[in-house]
Amino acid sequence: MMSSTGSFVMRLSEVARDVEACLEALLSDEARGGEMARPARLLSAMRHAALGGGKRLRPFLTIETARLFAREGEGPLRAGAAIELLHCYSLVHDDLPSMDDDDLRRGQPTVHRAFDEATAILAGDALQALAFEVLADPATDPDAAVRAELVLGLARASGLGGMVGGQQLDLAAEGRYGEAVLAEEDIRRLQMMKTGALLTFSVEAGAILGRADAAARNALRTYGRALGAAFQVADDILDREASAEALGKRTGKDLEKGKATLVDHLGMEGAKRECRRLVAEAQDALASFGAKAEVLRDAVRFVAEREV
Amino acid sequence: MMSSTGSFVMRLSEVARDVEACLEALLSDEARGGEMARPARLLSAMRHAALGGGKRLRPFLTIETARLFAREGEGPLRAGAAIELLHCYSLVHDDLPSMDDDDLRRGQPTVHRAFDEATAILAGDALQALAFEVLADPATDPDAAVRAELVLGLARASGLGGMVGGQQLDLAAEGRYGEAVLAEEDIRRLQMMKTGALLTFSVEAGAILGRADAAARNALRTYGRALGAAFQVADDILDREASAEALGKRTGKDLEKGKATLVDHLGMEGAKRECRRLVAEAQDALASFGAKAEVLRDAVRFVAEREV
Repeated sequence: MMSSTGSFVMRLSEVARDVEACLEALLSDEARGGEMARPARLLSAMRHAALGGGKRLRPFLTIETARLFAREGEGPLRAGAAIELLHCYSLVHDDLPSMDDDDLRRGQPTVHRAFDEATAILAGDALQALAFEVLADPATDPDAAVRAELVLGLARASGLGGMVGGQQLDLAAEGRYGEAVLAEEDIRRLQMMKTGALLTFSVEAGAILGRADAAARNALRTYGRALGAAFQVADDILDREASAEALGKRTGKDLEKGKATLVDHLGMEGAKRECRRLVAEAQDALASFGAKAEVLRDAVRFVAEREV
Repeated sequence: MMSSTGSFVMRLSEVARDVEACLEALLSDEARGGEMARPARLLSAMRHAALGGGKRLRPFLTIETARLFAREGEGPLRAGAAIELLHCYSLVHDDLPSMDDDDLRRGQPTVHRAFDEATAILAGDALQALAFEVLADPATDPDAAVRAELVLGLARASGLGGMVGGQQLDLAAEGRYGEAVLAEEDIRRLQMMKTGALLTFSVEAGAILGRADAAARNALRTYGRALGAAFQVADDILDREASAEALGKRTGKDLEKGKATLVDHLGMEGAKRECRRLVAEAQDALASFGAKAEVLRDAVRFVAEREV
């Protein structure tokens, strides 16, 4: 596949550096913890989970969407970091023995392997609380209505009707609770919940911070949904194709677990065609923003063509 | 011990009924879930965790504190229900095999026993998200600044520097991560985090909803902290004294785990004296509210003298 442009990759890693610094500050020993101390072991586990890795795609989407509306700096950075904290908590819990039972994540021991299971559960719980704390803090936006809307959006995208609900459906899709035969529509719904909802909200958060009007928000929601769907189709394709080295984790896991993916329903060529269609749909949704949305157009191509 | 007044107990159960109805509505099949469905198994597990039990002490504190400022109805009820959801999530996770490994909670199978471990972890995660969703929703308060302040307060009370951090310290106190010898001060800090922070916030949430001025908020914070501390000393006393039938769970667990409590440091009589001192401190903090704070004075006596 075509590689993304060099300037896009540079921008992505620039933002990742800023996000890393923001997360480092939020998870530092010296950070404000009210009058109560921060238990060292738990803080270490949270740092293990959240620091030093990842493309920081979700914060990137928040920051670049807010920039469409000339909103930059601390606010979008903190909001993006909050979404990343939420994402990181979900990875810690998904990796647990009773869930996906993974020993490695980005080539490093998962939190329950590096620490222990109880600490991993608590680290995830505390990362979730911290995500909401960061969003509700006046430093994220001077307007309380904006902060409350961000909290509401993140809670909905991540809870029963979003990410966590999607993870439950994903476990069911493995046949844990009885035989599961997923139709194409079921897989799309599962993916929209498990991964799509938080990616869509990452874009939406930028629109909220940017005080986007209804038309702009609708366009960006369409963009976010198509991007989220493209992300998952690409994931299904990667799971079937990529080598263990490239992914840094076991591959073919869906096959191994007998879980149907879109590749089963559409075939490999059909899945790739679907991925291209979603990229075009996402990019078309940005038409009204003109040239300044170029980085978001690059982002969806990057998501669809990523190899790691 | 002296029993609480009949009118207080009636009021407590009246509020518990309202809270139950509110939680039932929030966790109903028909409740709004955006465009996405709510996975049935996960919703069942959340209902198992949150419905049909408990004194609903935390919502009671929120509702009765808000009432001091003539604020009643849907807002305080929803805020109280949100805090209860947070509390219920913590119970689900604390009961897990890798944590306290409990099979029973209020005489019923714990969530991971009634469902499975993965579902219990996810149910806790989704209950936490729902707690923040409820607080951030305009139905809880028309003023977004109030909603954002509630979210911030709950996140701080429940995260790394509060409830979850306290649970981590509690695991360490069992000697899991090396020998642990807790001084009296360490135990007080652990208890203030694990249980006290959320109880204190339950009171504070009522003050926030009631637009209390700084003096009233300070007084109520003192009340909440003393109440939280009394709750834990009473818990330590109960753990040593109560029978298995009365508690509906295994007792003497602290002893069994070799965990030091305040009873070890103060002796049984000293712990009871400390409990009475905290009750008086809490009640004294309410002096400026006069007769209308009587129910809150009853509440702290109830907390200190509870037998189940």
